[in-house]
Amino acid sequence: MAPTEAEQHPRKALALAAHDASGRVTPIRISRRDTGDDDVAIQVLYCGICHSDLHTVRNEWRTAIYPVVPGHEIAGLVTEVGKNVHKFNVGDRVGVGCMANTCQSCESCEAGLENYCSKIVFTYNSHDRDGTVTCGGYSDMVVVNQRFVIRFPDGMPLDKGAPLLCAGITVYTPMKYHGLNEPGKRVGVIGLGGLGHVAVKFAKAFGMRVTVISTSPEKREEAVEKLGADDFVVSSDAGQMKAAKGTMHGIINTASASMSMYPYLALLKPQGKMILLGLPEKPLQISAFSLVAGGKTLSGSCMGSIKDTQEMMDFAAKHELTADVEVIGADDVNDALERLAKGDVRYRFVIDIGNTLVTT
Amino acid sequence: MAPTEAEQHPRKALALAAHDASGRVTPIRISRRDTGDDDVAIQVLYCGICHSDLHTVRNEWRTAIYPVVPGHEIAGLVTEVGKNVHKFNVGDRVGVGCMANTCQSCESCEAGLENYCSKIVFTYNSHDRDGTVTCGGYSDMVVVNQRFVIRFPDGMPLDKGAPLLCAGITVYTPMKYHGLNEPGKRVGVIGLGGLGHVAVKFAKAFGMRVTVISTSPEKREEAVEKLGADDFVVSSDAGQMKAAKGTMHGIINTASASMSMYPYLALLKPQGKMILLGLPEKPLQISAFSLVAGGKTLSGSCMGSIKDTQEMMDFAAKHELTADVEVIGADDVNDALERLAKGDVRYRFVIDIGNTLVTT
Repeated sequence: MAPTEAEQHPRKALALAAHDASGRVTPIRISRRDTGDDDVAIQVLYCGICHSDLHTVRNEWRTAIYPVVPGHEIAGLVTEVGKNVHKFNVGDRVGVGCMANTCQSCESCEAGLENYCSKIVFTYNSHDRDGTVTCGGYSDMVVVNQRFVIRFPDGMPLDKGAPLLCAGITVYTPMKYHGLNEPGKRVGVIGLGGLGHVAVKFAKAFGMRVTVISTSPEKREEAVEKLGADDFVVSSDAGQMKAAKGTMHGIINTASASMSMYPYLALLKPQGKMILLGLPEKPLQISAFSLVAGGKTLSGSCMGSIKDTQEMMDFAAKHELTADVEVIGADDVNDALERLAKGDVRYRFVIDIGNTLVTT
Repeated sequence: MAPTEAEQHPRKALALAAHDASGRVTPIRISRRDTGDDDVAIQVLYCGICHSDLHTVRNEWRTAIYPVVPGHEIAGLVTEVGKNVHKFNVGDRVGVGCMANTCQSCESCEAGLENYCSKIVFTYNSHDRDGTVTCGGYSDMVVVNQRFVIRFPDGMPLDKGAPLLCAGITVYTPMKYHGLNEPGKRVGVIGLGGLGHVAVKFAKAFGMRVTVISTSPEKREEAVEKLGADDFVVSSDAGQMKAAKGTMHGIINTASASMSMYPYLALLKPQGKMILLGLPEKPLQISAFSLVAGGKTLSGSCMGSIKDTQEMMDFAAKHELTADVEVIGADDVNDALERLAKGDVRYRFVIDIGNTLVTT
């Protein structure tokens, strides 16, 4: 049986944890390891609520190790550093994303793509090197290996910047690796949620022409006026879909519902690329013809490397790009999870951990 | 109603044509256009029998315009050139692949990817610029725009080289564009037919380590001893599939049967790529997780550009790479089509047009 945090970890912390598939969180006391030679201890000030948090606390992916302390969009201040840590100092504004460690020696790690390491330690609900289960950022402090700490650039706010550590890197990475970051190219974004709204912002920052593709006509104004999309296509409108056929170099597909890919792949130009970021439960139905005839690509993408995460944060700061967030208190997390399940958030909840997660 | 060839085309030719969905071919007389200013007239000496020919003559793709004269793996000698043609001379050894013309002005054409031109004129069963229906290489001569004529490099035999004009370029193109042409990389080939066997040869010529993945254990010796594959995996053997998991940078999938992609995608390393070349009738079932978790790619690919076709032929000649063929006479084509339907050929039939397609 794996040791508990309390057995191995002398440092006490406060956290919000889910205890069963209801997904409801309550405050608990947890323990963290002491700051090791390569570790950075961080006072958490803000933590975003990612859709993965919801899937995990409700055990929808059948992976929950209760109690689950979620949170992998962590922003805060350095409070202590280990003796081998030279690039961070006490007081620095830093963040932690989805990964807390990797093997650092496999082919993926050596290629700088440690997000695909098969021994990845996720920031929460994952077995750490010492056998304990990792606890995420719904907590007043975390201790993380320095390699997995991201610097917040000057000018990047901690609250609106926190979601970039997951949502931001998740959309930035495939744009970078699939050439969907070139000025003048046309890109579609399916789904206007936590991922989709930052996809629109990054695409605009890259200088691309952006079309939001949505099932909801009422999102047009928001997409165009507020987020800066150039075009808006209602996916259930055959005329609009036909008019957009063959116009896009790429599509960032953030939908997590099962859908027929055929009409969406038809929107791509020859050699166009659709990037899948969501995880619909049912298999996708793909006609081979819709990929072969135009030499089209369907690629999955998952998170991003630490190097790319820092690059993304620096790029975002330069372009004054942040997530649109609704900041909530620690007492509001259960309501927020309910609202997130219904898609009722524009576009990311961020918990004000620093001011509201306190001993009661 | 489209004009017939005979109405517009003064030049008489002999051909093999299918007249209905039985797919059986019989000799007929057809007509060809006179050699235009930009045209090359070619005496056909050999023509490969591609699986597309079978699909088309049997109207399995519902596209047949009978009578159908198939054939897009054409090799022969130049007999006449138009006044604007300077790069070919009478007597030159040349070939023609899948395309006879394109618009030459769209985005795909201007990018040198005219194989994705939406106005492409296929070498057979396609409406040509003048409204007539194109007739392919099961014929004693063809007249083709010079841009779509390929030079046979010195040393490349016409019979064994002809199939490269379709099968060769179809596998070469995705290897080139998806980075599956780098020494030391590991690539899998699904299906050991007309496409698969040349995929193995190109992959070896690129210096890669090649695994043939097949449903037929009895193909092991052929794959390893004769074609030079490094490894052989029987896809129905769970142990072999498990051992090969996560080992491949790419997979060239030439299968045209519907199959579950999950076990095959599992063979890829993170960021690995599966290239689809076949056209199964039923939609493929793809679990999003199997693409997203490892950042994997599923891409279609169709033919290749003229520039790449010439490059491929030159590369093949340099590496003494040809197709394995069974040369047959014009009288044997119906038998060959029957055998092809059963997969009974190693690996490509080539019709000896020059010596056997004669007036009876």
